Amino acid sequence: MFNYTGTYTDKYQLTMSQVYFLKGQKDTKAVFDYFFRKLPFNGGYAIFAGLEDLLTTLEVLRFDDQDLDYLKKQGFHPDFIRYLEKFRFTGNVYCSTEGDLVFPVRPVLQIEANIIEAQIIETLLLNILNFQTLIATKASRMRHAAGERSLVDFGLRRAQGPGGYYASRAAYIGGFNSTSNVRAGRDYDIPVSGTMAHSFVESFDDELAAFTNFAEVQPNDCVLVVDTYDTLKSGLPNAITVAKKMEEKGLRLDGIRLDSGDLSYLAKESRKRLDAAGLEYVKISVSNQLDEYIIKSLLDQQAPIDAFGVGTSLTTGHPDAALDGVYKLSYANGKPRIKLSENVSKITLPHKKQVFRIVDSDGKFFGADAVTMNDEKDVDVMYHPVYPLKSLSLIKYIKEPMLHIVMENGLRLNNPESLTDIAEYSRNRLENLPEEFKRFDNPHIYKVGISNKLQIERDRLIDEFKK
Amino acid sequence: MFNYTGTYTDKYQLTMSQVYFLKGQKDTKAVFDYFFRKLPFNGGYAIFAGLEDLLTTLEVLRFDDQDLDYLKKQGFHPDFIRYLEKFRFTGNVYCSTEGDLVFPVRPVLQIEANIIEAQIIETLLLNILNFQTLIATKASRMRHAAGERSLVDFGLRRAQGPGGYYASRAAYIGGFNSTSNVRAGRDYDIPVSGTMAHSFVESFDDELAAFTNFAEVQPNDCVLVVDTYDTLKSGLPNAITVAKKMEEKGLRLDGIRLDSGDLSYLAKESRKRLDAAGLEYVKISVSNQLDEYIIKSLLDQQAPIDAFGVGTSLTTGHPDAALDGVYKLSYANGKPRIKLSENVSKITLPHKKQVFRIVDSDGKFFGADAVTMNDEKDVDVMYHPVYPLKSLSLIKYIKEPMLHIVMENGLRLNNPESLTDIAEYSRNRLENLPEEFKRFDNPHIYKVGISNKLQIERDRLIDEFKK
Repeated sequence: MFNYTGTYTDKYQLTMSQVYFLKGQKDTKAVFDYFFRKLPFNGGYAIFAGLEDLLTTLEVLRFDDQDLDYLKKQGFHPDFIRYLEKFRFTGNVYCSTEGDLVFPVRPVLQIEANIIEAQIIETLLLNILNFQTLIATKASRMRHAAGERSLVDFGLRRAQGPGGYYASRAAYIGGFNSTSNVRAGRDYDIPVSGTMAHSFVESFDDELAAFTNFAEVQPNDCVLVVDTYDTLKSGLPNAITVAKKMEEKGLRLDGIRLDSGDLSYLAKESRKRLDAAGLEYVKISVSNQLDEYIIKSLLDQQAPIDAFGVGTSLTTGHPDAALDGVYKLSYANGKPRIKLSENVSKITLPHKKQVFRIVDSDGKFFGADAVTMNDEKDVDVMYHPVYPLKSLSLIKYIKEPMLHIVMENGLRLNNPESLTDIAEYSRNRLENLPEEFKRFDNPHIYKVGISNKLQIERDRLIDEFKK
Repeated sequence: MFNYTGTYTDKYQLTMSQVYFLKGQKDTKAVFDYFFRKLPFNGGYAIFAGLEDLLTTLEVLRFDDQDLDYLKKQGFHPDFIRYLEKFRFTGNVYCSTEGDLVFPVRPVLQIEANIIEAQIIETLLLNILNFQTLIATKASRMRHAAGERSLVDFGLRRAQGPGGYYASRAAYIGGFNSTSNVRAGRDYDIPVSGTMAHSFVESFDDELAAFTNFAEVQPNDCVLVVDTYDTLKSGLPNAITVAKKMEEKGLRLDGIRLDSGDLSYLAKESRKRLDAAGLEYVKISVSNQLDEYIIKSLLDQQAPIDAFGVGTSLTTGHPDAALDGVYKLSYANGKPRIKLSENVSKITLPHKKQVFRIVDSDGKFFGADAVTMNDEKDVDVMYHPVYPLKSLSLIKYIKEPMLHIVMENGLRLNNPESLTDIAEYSRNRLENLPEEFKRFDNPHIYKVGISNKLQIERDRLIDEFKK
């Protein structure tokens, strides 16, 4: 993990906090909502990820000596520096389960804390959750395209610095099988895997010698990269030679990797020639600028591919590169709070809230979440947040509350979830989402509505401002 | 800094290294080239960044106990684990100066080391240099659009995890004035700045009380965000009231910030009303999904903006999200090495090399770099790397060698450069690049050619493979 300290934040968080502190507002209670406004990749859902990393970090977040020295030099008030010396996060976290499907506008997570604590952690929280949610969602789309075939994260080299470390974690939640990233494997217990590089082949005087040496040392999980010089004329014949030699010793070549050229054509040709040599068991893996669309296209073309190695587009969440998650004040100092905007869809939802997922009697998600005030135990009708006449009766559906308290007074209420459990939970939840929300082109729009009580409160606050 | 350890690498680097180790190749000398194939953002140049971070990391890179335990469990050979226990990078680094302009295909950096060391550091090197070069380039484009106006990095919240920390560094090299990222400010000595958030305004019962409280505690660098409720009806009049009160105490409001709506219209209206109130000195800063094109458009519209706060598109390098930098073997075990490809532009350049920048007699860059063998002291003609008939006489030009040794036997030869010096160097170099390479639409193409000697060597190796 990056060694997060208190200064992993925007300067204005500290400037504002100092004002709160010096104006006697340090114990003011506030509620902030974390939500995003737009689904990434023009998709139909997002996978919530990053929560365990956030909670782990919040428990230990402190201003260290370097932080305090630096802030002194920056001119912060000595009394405020003394407050920061003892800073720790002592608030509550209410949130969706990591790995669950989440949708725009409705709160994914709420922080309830002293306003200074809530403000200082904002940047960190957004930084962790926005990115991992983006990548878990991207990975999930690739999983959707790849079916049951193996997906391997190759992205560290093109990742945005140590973003790649967290991307490997999020990719596993979103459905990847393994990563090439050894450090992420070590720390998050993700299966690690890898093949060989062109440089290995080139460092020997001929390709066959390179393959033979590799297979001798690495007889298990042996995957040979066959496109260093010429895939069909050189790489594949040499791989077949090595595979047959391995058979003599009772060993089996695990696979070949294609990393350039027409992957569909080369996979088909390779499959034919491997099969003709009695090597039906040798798997074909491919890499080279893959994304969910190319994976889908290769499989639509019936390319006999067993594994996909995906790099750049996975770990950078290309083409979006960011989730537009925000953190908005909804309650402070005993009163609900609201941000107005010319753009009505940007007006925030006041108050501490709950979110209910609408579920059919067969357990499938109906395709709607309803946002209510925190104290509403049920919701019979939900309204469109902007058009009050658009409403939906919810009486006949099951309603699952989505926001659960996971941290109270700065302490976690449960043991950390293992990454495997989070990934499995995510897979199960995704199975309940109807297929039309998963397609890449114009997916069905998941509805997010608000309760009558919340709507009335919001309108009241808007009217209050008008006066 | 992220605590990089030996496992911050792809698994195949370790698998291949183990083969080299167990096959007696651990002292084999190799040369790898770092280069990229495509300029980011369809631009005309890139700014090389990340070098200091890379060198600092290479000096201290070790496999720690957690790494070694993990690799043991992963089944690596005990002798190889013992080798890794003592691992340190003892190679040489030849490279371009950080902050310089770099171009596709020609080596930006070369590593000369034992093949195992060179291989293990590959992922880390690509991870650091690809990302920082991408972001420094993006920042430079924004600087080009903004002229002398202030540019502030607001991007940590939308950055790719701790990628944001390194992005702030790279943005400063590319020409940003300051960052909101306090931790990056602390560690890299970047000026930090910030304004106030909407939540601060909302947390008070009225906007004027929020502004007044803020200005009392923060009379210097006081920038008020004026769009929480209604910019022209509420935020701006309240800011003017506060500014006039400050004047009574001999203080000056530093600025206002616009974060939504039509920024051009609102900046113009705000300027008019501020000026009418005798507040010509109050600056106008804007934010909200800016990029180089929007900055350019706002200034083309004569919007009276003094400072731009840029977030997502800067720190994620949107829309590219990654630089396609690669690391290719060019020499090993006493012989030049080459990677062939169906795609002729992907055939690599063998041998240890030098790069010369072609400079006019007035010190302006001519718009071409020539790649030569390492032992060539000069280059009279350069050839297109693919079309041998395309050549350019270089006799009348000055030729600057670009690759310098900065690390020898794992030790740095110079003291670390300060970030300020790197940024200044970059600015000076950019001044030597003719304007037509800097425009956003169809910039002039910078030429990269190879010497006759290198061309002959490459052709010889291709012919050798054909036989």
